[in-house]
Amino acid sequence: MKTTILVHCPDQSGIISTVTGFIHKNQGNIVYLDQHVDKNADVFFMRTVIEFDTHFLDLEKFKTLFQEELASKYKMKWSLHTDEKLPNMAIFVSKYNHCLYDLLSRYRSGELAVEIPFILSNHNDLRYIADQFEIPFYHIPFNKEIRVQAEQQQLELLQKYNIDFIVLARYMQIVSEKLISKFPNKIINIHHSFLPAFAGAKPYHAAFKRGVKIIGATSHYVTEELDAGPIIEQDVTTVTHSHSIEDFITKGRDLEKIVLSRGVKLHIARKTMVYNNKTVIFS
Amino acid sequence: MKTTILVHCPDQSGIISTVTGFIHKNQGNIVYLDQHVDKNADVFFMRTVIEFDTHFLDLEKFKTLFQEELASKYKMKWSLHTDEKLPNMAIFVSKYNHCLYDLLSRYRSGELAVEIPFILSNHNDLRYIADQFEIPFYHIPFNKEIRVQAEQQQLELLQKYNIDFIVLARYMQIVSEKLISKFPNKIINIHHSFLPAFAGAKPYHAAFKRGVKIIGATSHYVTEELDAGPIIEQDVTTVTHSHSIEDFITKGRDLEKIVLSRGVKLHIARKTMVYNNKTVIFS
Amino acid sequence: MKTTILVHCPDQSGIISTVTGFIHKNQGNIVYLDQHVDKNADVFFMRTVIEFDTHFLDLEKFKTLFQEELASKYKMKWSLHTDEKLPNMAIFVSKYNHCLYDLLSRYRSGELAVEIPFILSNHNDLRYIADQFEIPFYHIPFNKEIRVQAEQQQLELLQKYNIDFIVLARYMQIVSEKLISKFPNKIINIHHSFLPAFAGAKPYHAAFKRGVKIIGATSHYVTEELDAGPIIEQDVTTVTHSHSIEDFITKGRDLEKIVLSRGVKLHIARKTMVYNNKTVIFS
Amino acid sequence: MKTTILVHCPDQSGIISTVTGFIHKNQGNIVYLDQHVDKNADVFFMRTVIEFDTHFLDLEKFKTLFQEELASKYKMKWSLHTDEKLPNMAIFVSKYNHCLYDLLSRYRSGELAVEIPFILSNHNDLRYIADQFEIPFYHIPFNKEIRVQAEQQQLELLQKYNIDFIVLARYMQIVSEKLISKFPNKIINIHHSFLPAFAGAKPYHAAFKRGVKIIGATSHYVTEELDAGPIIEQDVTTVTHSHSIEDFITKGRDLEKIVLSRGVKLHIARKTMVYNNKTVIFS
Repeated sequence: MKTTILVHCPDQSGIISTVTGFIHKNQGNIVYLDQHVDKNADVFFMRTVIEFDTHFLDLEKFKTLFQEELASKYKMKWSLHTDEKLPNMAIFVSKYNHCLYDLLSRYRSGELAVEIPFILSNHNDLRYIADQFEIPFYHIPFNKEIRVQAEQQQLELLQKYNIDFIVLARYMQIVSEKLISKFPNKIINIHHSFLPAFAGAKPYHAAFKRGVKIIGATSHYVTEELDAGPIIEQDVTTVTHSHSIEDFITKGRDLEKIVLSRGVKLHIARKTMVYNNKTVIFS
Repeated sequence: MKTTILVHCPDQSGIISTVTGFIHKNQGNIVYLDQHVDKNADVFFMRTVIEFDTHFLDLEKFKTLFQEELASKYKMKWSLHTDEKLPNMAIFVSKYNHCLYDLLSRYRSGELAVEIPFILSNHNDLRYIADQFEIPFYHIPFNKEIRVQAEQQQLELLQKYNIDFIVLARYMQIVSEKLISKFPNKIINIHHSFLPAFAGAKPYHAAFKRGVKIIGATSHYVTEELDAGPIIEQDVTTVTHSHSIEDFITKGRDLEKIVLSRGVKLHIARKTMVYNNKTVIFS
Repeated sequence: MKTTILVHCPDQSGIISTVTGFIHKNQGNIVYLDQHVDKNADVFFMRTVIEFDTHFLDLEKFKTLFQEELASKYKMKWSLHTDEKLPNMAIFVSKYNHCLYDLLSRYRSGELAVEIPFILSNHNDLRYIADQFEIPFYHIPFNKEIRVQAEQQQLELLQKYNIDFIVLARYMQIVSEKLISKFPNKIINIHHSFLPAFAGAKPYHAAFKRGVKIIGATSHYVTEELDAGPIIEQDVTTVTHSHSIEDFITKGRDLEKIVLSRGVKLHIARKTMVYNNKTVIFS
Repeated sequence: MKTTILVHCPDQSGIISTVTGFIHKNQGNIVYLDQHVDKNADVFFMRTVIEFDTHFLDLEKFKTLFQEELASKYKMKWSLHTDEKLPNMAIFVSKYNHCLYDLLSRYRSGELAVEIPFILSNHNDLRYIADQFEIPFYHIPFNKEIRVQAEQQQLELLQKYNIDFIVLARYMQIVSEKLISKFPNKIINIHHSFLPAFAGAKPYHAAFKRGVKIIGATSHYVTEELDAGPIIEQDVTTVTHSHSIEDFITKGRDLEKIVLSRGVKLHIARKTMVYNNKTVIFS
């Protein structure tokens, strides 16, 4: 069984050797270890992947010992993940289909180690894709007047299907604070600019007006402040004066789907940690 | 003799054939022609490079005819440049040496088709490089109290040496409106971010704080609004959580010097046109 | 009606003005013109897009005049394309689904201005995707013994559906000379390396063994020599020592689908010209 | 004092915890640790940076213990480097000046933590740059007839100045086997293509002929087989049909100097390890 442990705590001498010694003592074989110290914040981050001989492992006991012998002592925030159960990923969409098609074709190819219990949309336009891939599709319209009710419906669906994290695949609706608070650092959005440039609506139009020579896309965790959450992944492509806004949008679509899927895959692989509104990406 | 003509005017049917016919009729051989129509602004742009048989050419007469037969009719703004005389380029610097070294080594290699009559700085730190390359160096200190006098000295130098355009090679001082008005779209700055993200001071610090995964550099023409002039060239490089601010600065230096030199070379080659605070780059 | 004319011919003075004058005289408005001279081969290339007032245009007469007045004189190879009829594009696949999914989702989004009459495969694995998108799927097995018969079946299908060009979307079978000769510069392949590095089989394995820090993908026209045809588009992505061959393959898939679709779109838009086994790409 | 330890050995369970425990026990604070397992070769690689309290450290004793308690047991190849003495770097050049200018301006800026005792060339063309930067310049002509004698002169210089590693900054002469054997994985070359494409002479000409859309540069350790040594760093830039061979060369120069300097900086920082003709780069 492959087990991933993520740790962060105040930096201190000897953490690595203590943790690795502990794992070794408990019959774990460290197959990967990466570590980072944020010198400004004085915080230590570690990601380690361990192979246990399952005949000998009592996982609950291991977790208890980890908490008692290490986490308490070093004031660690930590989490442990096994590969025994696939996480449940919900996809929210609106009308653009490129990110949805991309995610579902990766899913179908076995590239994403998740279950996708449902797709949710504030419009009905993309139902045909859900049908193509035989995934349940829920149409929950959204506007100011029915806001509270719509949020309630969303939350019930997320709970019913035991959703672990949410992907906003060009979902053109602001997500409620309540939802964000229930899924902290578990909602991944794709924004169609290289943030922090062109946050908010119509970034391609703004980029065109400014005359930039590079456009980009950013996948990030959603926080209450719009387009200001921790950045997971960014990429860019060049444009010239000869490109129209429509060209920006078309070129941008390719960026969006690639950058979103990279962000999703890093999240699934437990390679992301968040601290001070920034990410540590152990790639 | 190689002659470059730049034209922009309200878009209209038949311009290309009229202009090319005119050139052909006047014994010019078009060796390059590129054109662009800004559909939003309804403006036509053209860059053409012509080889004339100099035995037959009366350049002044050609210019007169161009104005009378074409420019007046189509309401053209146009300019004509020959390769007979190298333009004079002044370099302004402060304390960082990487862009200066890069420009001067390209100059020495024959990569930049200019003369560099002098280097100007508000500090004395980089005089040694000017000495290394045997180029006159003028130290004109700058602060609020001596602002008017310093600007006057700058303008006198620029006039004395008959400067055609100015390169701000990490010149950490805001250029005066008067200077800008005397050199419209003729002052090239390098800003150490992918504008419009992180305009203003300390962009690497701001990028670090925001946790971006990509940093960039932008060369642009200087206008009165800080870091908001027409963008000539941009490039980016990836960063990770493991990079410190100092790493950003070091990686950024490589971007800055490359992006600045590309901007300078495009300007020298008359491949840039400015309209609506944006550039058309005929590369 | 938008009309695109592609021309190449021995370079000579006055071609641009003659051609543009001819178009103007025949009531055409040039909305785009780009030109290139291959100095080594002394060949002139031109792409121009013209808007005609269809009330006045007799296209057949225009073509006759173009041939008589221009093409004969300048020894032009030329072609004229209108946007009145979508070209027919056949897709050949084997077992990998990422390029197929990508092309079909673009097609469904209206990003590709083509008809896709059928998908052909030497295997049955991807029939489900054709079914998802409701496009006819033909399974034509291929091995040495049934080679002649299989080629015949392919050619009949291509003829029956009046196919204009073929996209090999990771079709892992060498295409016959006969097919190539019937579709010169009309078969687009995606090769999973930055050619000419790692031509032939298993390029990711070869790249891994060599320890490169960059992997790439190349879309190109198919010629008789394997992986040696005119390159349309290339792109790359970085890799490190920590990436396994499987990681190369996964990362490469994203390159392949993007680079193939770019090549296909350039072909559809008539932006590619081929000469001396190289492409001129008027983007 | 900052100490870097590089280790590789057959992979085995428990190495990380044993090594980190050993360092901790010997009063070292691990400020950085990265590790890699080559699954194909079953080899474990580790790079760790340690801060010792120099009051307590007996470095020679630490090394002895490391050998006895760890290296013998795990069959480690290992090396230990302190930051107390700058390494001596020799630069070999021929006639192109861009890489030399770039390295020297970085050196002058304090970006390269080395001493540069001398520059060696088979031509006299770049002596003026050595003079500009006040670094000794040795002109050692090279041709078949004086090969043995020239190699001898080179070796004497390298020995006299106690050179640690050599940078071939566009040195257009094949380095002798004897020199390579004396500086294993200590000679860094820049090749002006994305290897393995276009190894050997005139890669830009070959790239132009092949019609590639991307050109590159590669820094690598020199081995006996030409352009086939372990790759340290690669980068690329796009080209189009409109670029001539001269344009390739000019664009390529920017790649070459950046890619060479990155390779040199990784080497200086002890971030490179070589195994099976490939590099592990702990960046």
